[in-house]
Amino acid sequence: MHVLVIYDITPDNIRFKVAGICKDFGLVRIQKSAFLGIMTSERRKEMKARLERAIRGVKGNIQIFQIPEPYVSLREIIGEIEEYEEGGDLVF
Amino acid sequence: MHVLVIYDITPDNIRFKVAGICKDFGLVRIQKSAFLGIMTSERRKEMKARLERAIRGVKGNIQIFQIPEPYVSLREIIGEIEEYEEGGDLVF
Repeated sequence: MHVLVIYDITPDNIRFKVAGICKDFGLVRIQKSAFLGIMTSERRKEMKARLERAIRGVKGNIQIFQIPEPYVSLREIIGEIEEYEEGGDLVF
Repeated sequence: MHVLVIYDITPDNIRFKVAGICKDFGLVRIQKSAFLGIMTSERRKEMKARLERAIRGVKGNIQIFQIPEPYVSLREIIGEIEEYEEGGDLVF
């Protein structure tokens, strides 16, 4: 299953931490505050637990969507997706 | 079909314009730069055309996902969704 994580978090350090967790779980950055990738249900639950710990007590929210393959391919992109990371972590 | 619009746009005025278009098409703000709602395919195409015009020549991107009903209900929310708008436009 594809998993889309979007977040709205003000403190920089927590936002970086959340991005790091998304990367740890193999997701790829598609926007400054959005990550997409494929994940098992088990891994998604692990990631969710880490994200919960990361933003405890912080103003903001993280939303995790599950999008099945045929629908994720319907994504429409307007404008240019920049390369958010130097080296390696390419957008798809 | 549920439609999720996420965007990553730097200029304030263009970002506000994009948010306004999402609202015009009946979407509801779920994060500072994310809107969700139900829309026909025809309306989605109209919205896409307006969004394309809005960000022409601007650095940034808008991504439109289509998520069918049973999957949109699987959304997991960590933290609190604030009320992004004063009056009216409640989050769901």
